[in-house]
Amino acid sequence: MQTPRTPARRLSRYLPILGWARTYDKDTLTSDLVAAVIVTIMLIPQSLAYALLAGLPAEMGLYASILPLIAYAIFGTSRALAVGPVAVVSLMTAAAIGNLGLSDPVQIALAAGTLAFISGVILLSLGILRLGFLANFLSHPVIAGFITASGVLIAASQLKHILGIDMHGHTLVGLIETMVAHLGDINWITLLIGGSATAFLFWVRKGLKPLLLAKGLKPRVADILAKAGPVGAVIVTTLLTFAFSLADHGVKIVGEVPMGLPPLTMPSFSPDLWGQLFLSGLLISIIGFVESVSVAQTLAAKRRQRIDPDQELIGLGASNISTAMTGGFPVTGGFSRSVVNFDAGAETPAAGAFTAVGIAFATLLLTPLLFFLPKATLAATIIVAVLSLVDFSILPKAWKYSRVDFAAVAATIVLTLGFGVEAGVSAGVMLSIGLHLYKTSRPHVAEVGLVPGTQHFRNILRHDVETDETIVTLRVDESLYFANARFLEDYVLNRVACDQPIKHVILMFPAVNEVDMSALETLEELNRRLKEMDVQMHLSEVKGPVMDRLQRSHFLDELNGKVFQSQFDAWKALSGPAPAASAAS
Amino acid sequence: MQTPRTPARRLSRYLPILGWARTYDKDTLTSDLVAAVIVTIMLIPQSLAYALLAGLPAEMGLYASILPLIAYAIFGTSRALAVGPVAVVSLMTAAAIGNLGLSDPVQIALAAGTLAFISGVILLSLGILRLGFLANFLSHPVIAGFITASGVLIAASQLKHILGIDMHGHTLVGLIETMVAHLGDINWITLLIGGSATAFLFWVRKGLKPLLLAKGLKPRVADILAKAGPVGAVIVTTLLTFAFSLADHGVKIVGEVPMGLPPLTMPSFSPDLWGQLFLSGLLISIIGFVESVSVAQTLAAKRRQRIDPDQELIGLGASNISTAMTGGFPVTGGFSRSVVNFDAGAETPAAGAFTAVGIAFATLLLTPLLFFLPKATLAATIIVAVLSLVDFSILPKAWKYSRVDFAAVAATIVLTLGFGVEAGVSAGVMLSIGLHLYKTSRPHVAEVGLVPGTQHFRNILRHDVETDETIVTLRVDESLYFANARFLEDYVLNRVACDQPIKHVILMFPAVNEVDMSALETLEELNRRLKEMDVQMHLSEVKGPVMDRLQRSHFLDELNGKVFQSQFDAWKALSGPAPAASAAS
Repeated sequence: MQTPRTPARRLSRYLPILGWARTYDKDTLTSDLVAAVIVTIMLIPQSLAYALLAGLPAEMGLYASILPLIAYAIFGTSRALAVGPVAVVSLMTAAAIGNLGLSDPVQIALAAGTLAFISGVILLSLGILRLGFLANFLSHPVIAGFITASGVLIAASQLKHILGIDMHGHTLVGLIETMVAHLGDINWITLLIGGSATAFLFWVRKGLKPLLLAKGLKPRVADILAKAGPVGAVIVTTLLTFAFSLADHGVKIVGEVPMGLPPLTMPSFSPDLWGQLFLSGLLISIIGFVESVSVAQTLAAKRRQRIDPDQELIGLGASNISTAMTGGFPVTGGFSRSVVNFDAGAETPAAGAFTAVGIAFATLLLTPLLFFLPKATLAATIIVAVLSLVDFSILPKAWKYSRVDFAAVAATIVLTLGFGVEAGVSAGVMLSIGLHLYKTSRPHVAEVGLVPGTQHFRNILRHDVETDETIVTLRVDESLYFANARFLEDYVLNRVACDQPIKHVILMFPAVNEVDMSALETLEELNRRLKEMDVQMHLSEVKGPVMDRLQRSHFLDELNGKVFQSQFDAWKALSGPAPAASAAS
Repeated sequence: MQTPRTPARRLSRYLPILGWARTYDKDTLTSDLVAAVIVTIMLIPQSLAYALLAGLPAEMGLYASILPLIAYAIFGTSRALAVGPVAVVSLMTAAAIGNLGLSDPVQIALAAGTLAFISGVILLSLGILRLGFLANFLSHPVIAGFITASGVLIAASQLKHILGIDMHGHTLVGLIETMVAHLGDINWITLLIGGSATAFLFWVRKGLKPLLLAKGLKPRVADILAKAGPVGAVIVTTLLTFAFSLADHGVKIVGEVPMGLPPLTMPSFSPDLWGQLFLSGLLISIIGFVESVSVAQTLAAKRRQRIDPDQELIGLGASNISTAMTGGFPVTGGFSRSVVNFDAGAETPAAGAFTAVGIAFATLLLTPLLFFLPKATLAATIIVAVLSLVDFSILPKAWKYSRVDFAAVAATIVLTLGFGVEAGVSAGVMLSIGLHLYKTSRPHVAEVGLVPGTQHFRNILRHDVETDETIVTLRVDESLYFANARFLEDYVLNRVACDQPIKHVILMFPAVNEVDMSALETLEELNRRLKEMDVQMHLSEVKGPVMDRLQRSHFLDELNGKVFQSQFDAWKALSGPAPAASAAS
């Protein structure tokens, strides 16, 4: 399973570009170029919109969609992932920068770049230390709950642009409160534009493609036209705003977007600012990584390719450091754009690099055309995009499967909506871990007996099995470690105390994968106590790794019984001359 | 195992005094009274010393040894536990109050009372919510490391009284630095008193009892005389200080201790102060509870009694609330005094109540006699007491058994010495949990084969077993949950990808005690992928609780293979007409 470690192989592990660039040919180039054109068209309004969502000037969205894509093309392992500003990370950026209470736009942009830099350093360090597995500590239900709640928050936050009123806050309650307070200030022209754009985009998403197919277009062309919907909305509303001077009637527009390539910028290295942003940077890194890796894995699986999570960390780290150096803000691999890229036929990360070139051209040539673009249109594209992420069906699904998983999802949703994204995701992680520890701290212990005619032992409460009144066999269904060691001791002593004829306790360990030092001390104690009660303590089916470890202690020498390879061996050795029938007990 | 739930039973569960008071007779009274006298004599110097260690006036140590003992006698379940100020909790109190940077003695005393009150409320709440199992999250090695490092810190902090110099700091480095800086200020008379007292007390502990036994005294009398050593040191050094007016030569003395019963006091309810003290209160509660419960369980086991950890939380909570109301500071069940109480024959918690009466008499009558008591003598009693807790042998023991446990102990010791008690114990808990999750996130997966002539399957790398080249059986040695779900998916796909003839993958689940929702989604995904590769996925030996849960999802309907009760059934059904010999593959 290991690839041979020639120097070239080793280098291409850290620079995946060396792997695919060697076999790059004209066909691949064509596929990548087509995909790049489609993604570029889609990305221009999206980048502007997410900058707006993050509370930053629109051009920063374009800047964040150039160099980071090239950095990912060099260091990333996914062939179809499209990197750039994404909804959830932009919302988290807005929350992190909002906490600083800045008002100077220069300071705000500097803080956004610094946040991206911190996140880049964190991702890069985790990648170099090969700590990609840490992302596994976000359980699936917690991620699902977090994404759903974030979608609701993002959509709510965009209502201010649709309604043309002032709204702020990072929680659902805060947003609704300010909305209600300013309902009197609604700008009806803005609402008309925003409302129509939203309705149009929803229709494009659901109704346009079937219509085009019905008109006889090829599926692929219909698909691309449907994806270009936001661009249509941008063009039409910009022209209307320009033609009727709607800006003079209170419609908020994007205004002047500087023309030209991104500036070279340096993040701040102020320890104060790093201190204030570090936790946010960590959360953004984790969430961004998890989102990106899930997308990348889904797409890789469709083409039987593999991605390397540790190398993905390096790719995303490089992207975030480069966005910090070129006037951008935190980026990651986005779901919708990656799917578009994949569907459009992107075969290598070069497609991403070509997209970067496309966006760079846009910053050079198209920015004057964006002057009259209404912010309401951008808000409409965000709302339509994020509402597709909102999926409360995880709640009944989790409820049905397990109350513990349900508790984690529900808490994540409620806390994200009620206290903001950072509180929500932190609580989700801690709750997942806490509930897991709680479950394992009270392990399932089954008393087992012999299934007649076999060598198999099952739970006496669930199966019709043979038992012997002098033997009690307890199958411990959990690794033994500090959190549950005392529980087992209490369980065994209670079981033995209430049943006189017991002479042998067999602890059956097929499910015990670890015995840590706390548990070892508890087993020693249990052995001593049972000895005092004239009961022998035996072990059976102890696994290799656990046995190896027990042999490093004195426990096996002191054990007041034997260790049997199989439970059947233990049964043959300990049960009476004739196997005791269950009727006898 | 459940006691019948009559109303009286239920009440006596919350008021254990109702249980033992009914059968109280003259013999029990005599035993309890004897124990109380011995513990009182031992407790007077100890209480003064621990108040000093906590940075508080000496009389607060006495106040903390009156009402809390009576509260515990009413609510506690251990028959021999002696509650009061103890070394580690006093050190943690000093650290917590030191953080506040107060200089007014009235404010300091108020903060100490408030800390006890917070701790009492936390303990009581945990008890009422029956969350006593939370204490299990402190692993044994972490506790051992913490106690050892605290012992070193406490002994070092007392050197200032022995040397008669100014030293401060809550870390070993800080203490040594200030010691070195003030070495020129050593008061030699203080050093002579402190040094002799320390040497004397060490000798009393090790050498006096054998000597008395050799002189023909009865073991019990010899034991009691040896325990009275500190009282002897107190009397002799006080008389010397008085006779030679040593206080005029710079020997620090206890000075005026107010006469009379403890005052009624109220804790502060300032939200600011609660905010500053809450975390410290939580850590003190946890450490105090763990220390107290281990002592109580050890002693209860010797007399085949049981304690109820949840009720212990209530008992200790009541003790801390009552110490807060009567001019004291945080208390818990102490190791040495409880052992003395037990050895002296205490049979019920009434012994504690009698001890409280003894201490109350001392505050009424003896405080003037303490005026000339040198602080160096009290420091000597602390040093001798805590050095018996210091035991670095946990380090080699843990190293030999498991590197993970060793890492937890070593980090706890280093962080406690280097950054203080609060950092040490917090890091210890987080490290224990983190390392446990890390271990379970990369589970042991064994490929197994049939042990010839049995129905038993073992690891093909460790045992000589039969295999079939079309079947790969993987025994998963861990519960499947969010942290390791992806690991299993990768493992199985890698295994199948590199071996062409495989037609069946059997996941053997005897050690899988849980499949959470994240893992379920991974299994569904794995099933889809294997189906695409024309490989059937089967499960065997799925345990009852896991099967129940899987049946709540669609997974079993979609499963591209079967679920077998035993691995042998799976083998019989799937391996070729004649069992394939391993030579064939």
